[in-house]
This record gives sequence, structure tokens and C-alpha cells, in this order.
Amino acid sequence: MIDLYTFSTPNGQKASIALEELGLPYTVKVINITQGEQFHPEFLAINPNNKIPAIVDHSVPGGLKLFESGAILLYLAEKTGRLLPTDLAGKAEVTQWLMFQMGGVGPMLGQLGFFNRFSPTKIPLAIERYRNESSRLLGVLDRHLSSRDYVAREYSVADIALYPWLVGARNAYPELFRALRGVPQWLERVGARPAVQRGMKIPNLAR
Amino acid sequence: MIDLYTFSTPNGQKASIALEELGLPYTVKVINITQGEQFHPEFLAINPNNKIPAIVDHSVPGGLKLFESGAILLYLAEKTGRLLPTDLAGKAEVTQWLMFQMGGVGPMLGQLGFFNRFSPTKIPLAIERYRNESSRLLGVLDRHLSSRDYVAREYSVADIALYPWLVGARNAYPELFRALRGVPQWLERVGARPAVQRGMKIPNLAR
Ligand SMILES: N[C@@H](CCC(=O)N[C@@H](CS)C(=O)NCC(=O)O)C(=O)O
Ligand SMILES: N[C@@H](CCC(=O)N[C@@H](CS)C(=O)NCC(=O)O)C(=O)O
Repeated sequence: MIDLYTFSTPNGQKASIALEELGLPYTVKVINITQGEQFHPEFLAINPNNKIPAIVDHSVPGGLKLFESGAILLYLAEKTGRLLPTDLAGKAEVTQWLMFQMGGVGPMLGQLGFFNRFSPTKIPLAIERYRNESSRLLGVLDRHLSSRDYVAREYSVADIALYPWLVGARNAYPELFRALRGVPQWLERVGARPAVQRGMKIPNLAR
Repeated sequence: MIDLYTFSTPNGQKASIALEELGLPYTVKVINITQGEQFHPEFLAINPNNKIPAIVDHSVPGGLKLFESGAILLYLAEKTGRLLPTDLAGKAEVTQWLMFQMGGVGPMLGQLGFFNRFSPTKIPLAIERYRNESSRLLGVLDRHLSSRDYVAREYSVADIALYPWLVGARNAYPELFRALRGVPQWLERVGARPAVQRGMKIPNLAR
């Protein structure tokens, strides 16, 4: 059994989508990051970096603790032998686009979100910087997806990592998506998967 | 034979350190990002995201192209069976800290560098935001390293990913390191490795 510590944000949704796709049984533990629950000592013992998502895999003797959504995706894929090719070249291609999300799309959209919505003062230079960089990254992905059904040869953890971020970005900045072709079609294709739809609704905060 | 497209920056140094550690023969191709060489069509055909590092591994039929330093590190490690444990739990631990560098340390120190040095106007709110976040991340790593010789159980690609970033940060922001204990000792330990010393000097721009 896996415990998933998560909240309703793109990084959390990556983990729940993967667990749903893989059909692994898991228990959702809500960490409300708007109320500082990521700083509680019990959670810091799992992720000293005070961020969701994190998992504890109790099927491993002693319980395997793991944070960083990208590491969780690779671990779950290798544990099950799914959502990641096993040959070196195929695996490298998936990892490359997973890193593109982890080091590019996530951090840059994250900074745009901060300066656009949360920053105490509006700083045009910062908003423009992150809007431009987000738009550039979307363009790279859009050209890549214009001739492909999925980010790599087959549906993989790279699609799962990018999907919730791009759904969020399209809601927040529809103007950045107007000129895109490959990304919107891919969003439909990935969004049609039942496991993706279930994973996007975790955690169900209405409960 | 591997072609390494790189420049004298932390992300480039990660790749050259790994190649030196693994003793893999490689050819250095300098992409001068201060002169826009990352936008040349020949390079965009290797990395459409216009960033160094990237490799082409000609030992793979057709030539394997790969960008994103984190993906390059994992690929080289798996190709050689070194610098990364093969058991799932050990590998996950290394991947976790590699992702901490890729998604946290790299992007946040990168933004600090921009607002501190390159931004056309000084924006205290942005400088403070990234200084605080960098300092917080350094603290997480420092506490982790206070009881360990290396980031994971053994020296791995996680150490290699973090080392050039922390060397750069210590040079640029020594005040952020004053209260640290684990990180400085680890920097000495990793920095004493001959392969690390060689990798940090790639590319040799004096040539
Ligand atoms: N690189 C990390 C980023 C995780 C992250 O940024 N999580 C956010 C929510 S999306 C969080 O928990 N923030 C709370 C905090 O930083 O205090 C990952 O991919 O797991
Ligand atoms: N996530 C990427 C980041 C690479 C990166 O930011 N490279 C910088 C130099 S350290 C670059 O090439 N910048 C040129 C540009 O963006 O135009 C990786 O880890 O490889």
C-alpha cells in the first residue's frame, strides 16, 4: 500500500494520475499547503523540503519515503514496468521531456503564477519575463507535438508530468494557447483517459 | 564516441563531470550562449529548447540525441551501470535529489542570478524572493548532508548535479553559506575528485 501526500496542484496531480494509470492501491493524505501543513514535523520527516507530493511505499521493508514528483513518477514506472520504455534510448527520450517539465515548464509557470497573482506589488518586468519564457516553452512543446500523438513514442510519465501543468496554464493564460495546434490536440487526447480524469480530482477536498 | 554540446555554466559542467567520472571518450563542441549559438539551426536540431548541455551518442545506431542535463546524467549512468544504484529504492533516492537540483536549486539560483546581476532594473522584491528560496534550499541540503558523506548512500549523479551549482552559489553569495556545515564539507569532498576538477574546466575556452 502506498500513502500519497498531496494537494490539489499540478505537482500533486502528476502523482495521482500515475497511481490511477498503474492501478496501484493508495491512500490519499491531504497536506493543505495553504494552511502550512507542509511544515508539520510529521510531514517534514517525509519531505524535509516541505513540498507536496511525497509518497511512502509500505510494500518496501521499512517503508520507502520519496519526494519530488519527477522521482515519484520514475519510481512508480520502474516498479511496475509501465509508462516508461525499458530500452536505454526510449527511456532517455521520456526522461528528457520529464526533465523539461521539472526544470522548465514547472518552475517558469510557477514564477509566472506568483508574479501574476500573488506578488504584493505588480512588477511588469517580472511578469513579462515569465510570460515570455512560458510562451517560449509552450512553443517548443507545440512544435514537438505537431507530428506526434504523445511526447515520446508512447504515452508515458512525460505526458503525465506535463498534462496538469498545461491544463492549469490554459485556464490561467488562454491567450498563450491561441496560436498553438499540437498542444491543444494532445491535451484532448490525454484528457480523455479515464485514469487522467480520476487523478486530476485527487485530493477530493469536498469530502 | 559522444559529442558534448556545452558551455562554461553549471548545467554544462554536470555533463562533463559525469563523462570524466565514467571515463567515456567525448568530443567537446562549444555552444557560446552569450553569442546566441544555441539558436543556430544545427543546434536546434539537437535541442529544440535552445539550451546547453546536449549530447549525441554516436555509439547508438543513428546517433542518440539528448538534452536536459538531468536526463543526460541518468542516461550515462544507466549506460555504464555506474553513479546510480540499480536497486529500485537506491535509484529512487538518487533520482529524488537529482530532481531537487533540477526543479529547485537550479531554477531558483538561476532566477536569483538574473535579478541580482542581469535585470535591467533592481527589483528588491524579486531579489529577496529568490535569495530566501535559495537560502531555504541550501538549508535543506545542509541538514541532509550534516550526517552523510554524499547526497545518497554513495557518490552518485545527484552529487554531480548539485556540485557545480553550489560552487557557483558559494562564489556569488558567500553570505548564504556562512551558517552552513554539511554543504561546505561535502563541497571539499566532492571537489577533491580529479574527475570533478577536470569536468569543471570543460569547455576550456582559452583554447
Ligand atoms: N519540484 C517539486 C515541486 C513541488 C512543489 O512545488 N509543490 C508545491 C505545490 S505544487 C508545494 O508543496 N508548495 C508548498 C511550499 O513550498 O511551501 C516537485 O516536482 O515535486
Ligand atoms: N533544465 C536545463 C537547463 C539548461 C540551461 O538552463 N542552460 C543554460 C545555460 S546554464 C542555457 O543554455 N541558456 C541559453 C538560453 O536559454 O538561451 C538542463 O538542466 O539542461
